[in-house]
Amino acid sequence: MVTARGLWNMACSMTLPTDPAKNLADLIRCPSVTPEDAGALDTLARMLEPLGAKSEKPVFSDDNTPDIANLYATIGEDGPHLMFAGHTDVVPVGDPDQWKYPPFAAEIADGVMYGRGAVDMKGGIACFVAALARHVEKNGPLKGRASLLITGDEEGPAINGTVKLLEWARERGESWDAAIVGEPTNPEKLGDMIKIGRRGSMSGRVTVTGRQGHVAYPHLADNPVPGIMALGQGLIANIFDQGTDEFQPSNLEITTVDVGNPAVNVIPGKASLAFNIRFNDTWTAESLQEEIHNRLDEAAEHDCAARGLEAPVEYDIEWIGRVSPVFLTRDEKLIETLSASVEAVTGERPKLSTSGGTSDARFIKDYCPVVEFGLVGQTMHMVDERVPVSDLETLTQIYERFIQDWFG
Amino acid sequence: MVTARGLWNMACSMTLPTDPAKNLADLIRCPSVTPEDAGALDTLARMLEPLGAKSEKPVFSDDNTPDIANLYATIGEDGPHLMFAGHTDVVPVGDPDQWKYPPFAAEIADGVMYGRGAVDMKGGIACFVAALARHVEKNGPLKGRASLLITGDEEGPAINGTVKLLEWARERGESWDAAIVGEPTNPEKLGDMIKIGRRGSMSGRVTVTGRQGHVAYPHLADNPVPGIMALGQGLIANIFDQGTDEFQPSNLEITTVDVGNPAVNVIPGKASLAFNIRFNDTWTAESLQEEIHNRLDEAAEHDCAARGLEAPVEYDIEWIGRVSPVFLTRDEKLIETLSASVEAVTGERPKLSTSGGTSDARFIKDYCPVVEFGLVGQTMHMVDERVPVSDLETLTQIYERFIQDWFG
Repeated sequence: MVTARGLWNMACSMTLPTDPAKNLADLIRCPSVTPEDAGALDTLARMLEPLGAKSEKPVFSDDNTPDIANLYATIGEDGPHLMFAGHTDVVPVGDPDQWKYPPFAAEIADGVMYGRGAVDMKGGIACFVAALARHVEKNGPLKGRASLLITGDEEGPAINGTVKLLEWARERGESWDAAIVGEPTNPEKLGDMIKIGRRGSMSGRVTVTGRQGHVAYPHLADNPVPGIMALGQGLIANIFDQGTDEFQPSNLEITTVDVGNPAVNVIPGKASLAFNIRFNDTWTAESLQEEIHNRLDEAAEHDCAARGLEAPVEYDIEWIGRVSPVFLTRDEKLIETLSASVEAVTGERPKLSTSGGTSDARFIKDYCPVVEFGLVGQTMHMVDERVPVSDLETLTQIYERFIQDWFG
Repeated sequence: MVTARGLWNMACSMTLPTDPAKNLADLIRCPSVTPEDAGALDTLARMLEPLGAKSEKPVFSDDNTPDIANLYATIGEDGPHLMFAGHTDVVPVGDPDQWKYPPFAAEIADGVMYGRGAVDMKGGIACFVAALARHVEKNGPLKGRASLLITGDEEGPAINGTVKLLEWARERGESWDAAIVGEPTNPEKLGDMIKIGRRGSMSGRVTVTGRQGHVAYPHLADNPVPGIMALGQGLIANIFDQGTDEFQPSNLEITTVDVGNPAVNVIPGKASLAFNIRFNDTWTAESLQEEIHNRLDEAAEHDCAARGLEAPVEYDIEWIGRVSPVFLTRDEKLIETLSASVEAVTGERPKLSTSGGTSDARFIKDYCPVVEFGLVGQTMHMVDERVPVSDLETLTQIYERFIQDWFG
């Protein structure tokens, strides 16, 4: 059996990955556009070897999506167990000719490193690895365990990634005391914002079926368009809530309305709309679905009265995809230790936020308290995605401070 | 020069086309699915030869649509000039296996003739030809002129048909005192309804341009869907008029709303709707366009207030295709002679109507007073399009009576 001290001795015999810019360059140079791995996970596993990490690379698959490689790497053996979660897959580069520097070259110009994944989120991984290395270099073995749970399927359908990796690890007896997701959370500058929860997300499609006919004979047809417009307006006419101390107000967006009738002399037979709602913890998925039904029913009644119809329009509603439930992390130690680390390094207290889109934290929250903190998100998914090398250094220092204090 | 008497003598030497069922069968057996002619116009021209008709077959073409054959056949030389207008092209048969009898066989079963075009409108042409033949057989040469203006492009784009044929004839010095279009005008039974005008028709497309974005960050995007729904509702919230003695109320139908955004996590950047309005003579195209603009502006203002926007949504409006102006025929002699003919044959006074869709009468009205009267429309455009042989006889008698009385 390899002891902690043995690992420590092994680690010291190799070069520790203490430079976040070097770590990041190595990762960017693997063109791991989702669902391709392109060697990114092996690069990361090799980077962790000097830290004595035990790495496994489970591959998950299903019938409809590509096989996806994932990495679970753990350092240390006993004591408090910290998870760092993230992904090495990146979004496509768009038109590579529009990039100032090749998107997988990790060029540094004027102190800024360019490359797809620089902030979302190979940069976060590179900094966490550097922070671990610096901590171990200064303090010897961790007083506990740190595990990296890294997927190659966050930017894709997220079927063969974090969800399955968490189940896989739990089946092997793993459990965690806290988790940090290294997604870019800062809107403007490093240290702005820690995300301590996320709104839920739910989507639906509403369809009104009428009766097709000729525009010159509307009494022989039944145009579904006035009905779908009335239902759509009923969905958005009133706010859902005022928000809470921790959460923004819930918000519904109608994302499409479609009829698809090219003939101006034809009354169409069907009309539909789709919507997405981001909701806070004043709602559950169930209470929100009931609210949506009520709003649609009321809108149909109102429309019936306004148009003098014999009966309200009938509609079908279909809930699309998976509901992402709302969550809020209340773990004081995790939040306070991270906030204090940010303040110690940057001089400013970060905002605790639940704003923005969903992330894999929505899956992790069922296993342990989870927060998200990483780089500045401004260039994510864009041409010329980039990160100042100074930001990499700052984030590494914050993560190192956090590791120091959380393991205590 | 051939005199009227000379023509008369020639006519009598041939078999006159006095049987509308035979005439119709000959026409149905030409499978003239638009834009194909399939010999239909030549068949008609031959049918008219015993009446001494002078026929010409101008072919019209443009860059984007098929060449179309048309027929202008004229009988007689001086005196009042009556136009009979119609078309020999027919709509597709749909699934021929669903027909009781082959769609181009002109089978008669239980006194009913089956075939595509039986009522729309080879039947009307067959009856008018028979009526002319019977009139000439009994009374000798016409006391004036009758011309058949027949296109092969009524069921198609109507580019190379009646519009160009009218211009062609006018350039050759032709003018007319009155016209009958032989479209099926009777909703229930033969003699129900003469159409003495048509509502106008105008179409437009309204587009709202917003700003695409992620549903989780609606403040960074500008969803055009609420705006397009508000504008759409503004278009239909109020009636346009109560109708007049001669016309139904004007009516606007929104024929499509389109966004075409498949991603439920994306706020779309653009939304549009199209509409068609059928309008009566309380409006001109210009006054109606102004009304539409006013309605859209008011809806945008109302929406701005309701949603607390900084400014009303901006919209673009594009007028689609050709405006069909409203028209009403006020020629007493034409309307009264036809009404009296119907009453004399059927025992009932026909209703004078301006209801329903547009027809080529909208083009003819710029040349002379025009009414529409033909068979019963119930099976037009359907599988098993058909006409009772007794209806053919009745319509022939009505047309013959009309010819008798109109030429006086």
